[in-house]
Amino acid sequence: MTIYNFSAGPATLPKPVLEQAQNELRNYQGSGMSVLEMSHRSPEFDKIIKDAEKTLRELMDIPDNYKVMFLQGGASLQFTMVPLNLAQGKKAYYLVGGSWGKKAYTEALKLAKTIPFEPILLASSEDTVYDHIPTFDPATIDPEAAYVHLTTNNTIEGTAIYELPDTNGVPIVADMSSNILAARYNVEDFALIYAGAQKNIGPAGVTVVIVREDFLNDQPMLSSMLDYRIQAEAGSLYNTPPAYNIYISKLVFDWVKNEIGGVDKMAAIEREKSALLYDFIEQSDFYTSPVKFAKDRSVCNIPFVTPSKDLDAQFVKEADALGFKNIKGHRSVGGMRASLYNAFPRQGVLDLLEFMKKFEEEHK
Amino acid sequence: MTIYNFSAGPATLPKPVLEQAQNELRNYQGSGMSVLEMSHRSPEFDKIIKDAEKTLRELMDIPDNYKVMFLQGGASLQFTMVPLNLAQGKKAYYLVGGSWGKKAYTEALKLAKTIPFEPILLASSEDTVYDHIPTFDPATIDPEAAYVHLTTNNTIEGTAIYELPDTNGVPIVADMSSNILAARYNVEDFALIYAGAQKNIGPAGVTVVIVREDFLNDQPMLSSMLDYRIQAEAGSLYNTPPAYNIYISKLVFDWVKNEIGGVDKMAAIEREKSALLYDFIEQSDFYTSPVKFAKDRSVCNIPFVTPSKDLDAQFVKEADALGFKNIKGHRSVGGMRASLYNAFPRQGVLDLLEFMKKFEEEHK
Repeated sequence: MTIYNFSAGPATLPKPVLEQAQNELRNYQGSGMSVLEMSHRSPEFDKIIKDAEKTLRELMDIPDNYKVMFLQGGASLQFTMVPLNLAQGKKAYYLVGGSWGKKAYTEALKLAKTIPFEPILLASSEDTVYDHIPTFDPATIDPEAAYVHLTTNNTIEGTAIYELPDTNGVPIVADMSSNILAARYNVEDFALIYAGAQKNIGPAGVTVVIVREDFLNDQPMLSSMLDYRIQAEAGSLYNTPPAYNIYISKLVFDWVKNEIGGVDKMAAIEREKSALLYDFIEQSDFYTSPVKFAKDRSVCNIPFVTPSKDLDAQFVKEADALGFKNIKGHRSVGGMRASLYNAFPRQGVLDLLEFMKKFEEEHK
Repeated sequence: MTIYNFSAGPATLPKPVLEQAQNELRNYQGSGMSVLEMSHRSPEFDKIIKDAEKTLRELMDIPDNYKVMFLQGGASLQFTMVPLNLAQGKKAYYLVGGSWGKKAYTEALKLAKTIPFEPILLASSEDTVYDHIPTFDPATIDPEAAYVHLTTNNTIEGTAIYELPDTNGVPIVADMSSNILAARYNVEDFALIYAGAQKNIGPAGVTVVIVREDFLNDQPMLSSMLDYRIQAEAGSLYNTPPAYNIYISKLVFDWVKNEIGGVDKMAAIEREKSALLYDFIEQSDFYTSPVKFAKDRSVCNIPFVTPSKDLDAQFVKEADALGFKNIKGHRSVGGMRASLYNAFPRQGVLDLLEFMKKFEEEHK
């Protein structure tokens, strides 16, 4: 049975990446060592991490005045590191369009009990279970604020920001965890971008942080590990990095560049792939999308529901038995969620649509 | 050519572990998925992380009133998390027997500029380049202090603490990164043990933390990710864990248990293996150990020098060409360092001794 992994993350990796990883697991390019056991100071790993950065810079067109870091702790640790490094003594605005944006704001409030800065909720769509990207009046933003934080893709709710909002000149910090490399963004529009790897980059355990140099802190932070300047100046080698996770990420970057042809092509593939599902849901009287506006639709995470919770549960059960794994929606939204990240195969969407049609026929 | 990887970390992994990892890389136990792409909420990964914890508990004989966590950020992030969670409003003593212990103390000083607690240098052997484990008078320790921090094995300098010092009743916190599972310690003698995986556990990117429940913080910390109670109560799944790194660690725990027969047997193997090298160095007039006292010798990291720096450099160069990789000593100690962690093969020591004899003949 073919397995399609619809997991919201950790998520499907490209088949050629897994093949290469398997082939060289015990002996990386004739070194006689696995990358799993290789010194992070070895020439072999030095090349891996530098190539990873180089290819990511090419893919995202990252300007030279931005630093690229491969850190640990996931986006969740960035919820602390971002305000700690960027916001001290200032205001920091949070645009909350989903559960993870809310977590970022909540962590900022927690940090603000110890570190002097002022987290401000700019706008939120929590009242309607984040069924749309909230809007706001730019004039309400203090132009002296440190940043406006936003989430470019809401993994749980299936919404995304493709056109950045007017922030009254205040720099934007983005959690891009669930659509980095799946949509084209202009890095220069951001002061800082961060992304946990486990959706479109690689395995869980490494987090990409891209920061404009002039936003690096001048004062030491309370912990070297949480200090962007220390991490950036050490080239992500302040301490032992998650080397294997970086290696797999490098293979994924190579795949996007060489097999796909770059981010614009990847983004086009993602749009076409997700449109197959969105178009089907739209013409159906049985399935509906909880996302309010078509313009807010994520190409990566597509939630949908049947007419009842019982049918949702039955759908998930039958789908699972047929090899459509991890398609159950997050408990806050319910129903189903098809996460169609970059490496998710188009055939998997076609097969899902066949099953959805059959299920609709049987239960409408 | 056979490659022997003497790296101080990331370090050699057991061959059967790498074989199993390679075999199931693309399809974990018939799931149709790689562990690299598997949801951390899946039944498959739930079993992996629970089995990892279970086997580690067996190996180290961890009592039920201790929590076991698999975190990110390496020992370096623990340098912050330990005082943040355990020391607020109290004194915390640091026994500094090596470069990493000094880093732990330095990070504590950094944190103390923001968080109210008092880091105190209990004793240090820095003056003699950490060539021995420093001693102290227990009566100088305030019995109300939060903890005495020590490093059980000094990776760079090749010393270790096998008999815990009298700390005047104050709980001991240990960085066990470089000899966990290579020597027997009684977990009940510690309030908290932490260890980066990349020496005796698995690949870099996961850190084991073992903490007695009554040392968990009552008050929320400034960041959820840095909050032991939150991490412990979430069973290391507060956010997406470094799943693959935990999976490889589980395979290593299984290897120590099933192939070796437990920590006592592993420790005996480590003692015998390292004694081969120590005995040879001792009888030699050419090689010397920078470690002052035999009782302080690490079984995991064995530094040694020839009569001159030029010969040291030549040794490293010739050794490398013969497949003895990463044997160069840390710049602070110089010379050579053979890291003989658990997975390092005994034959590699015998082959190294042959080369050392030959090199001595040629240059004495």
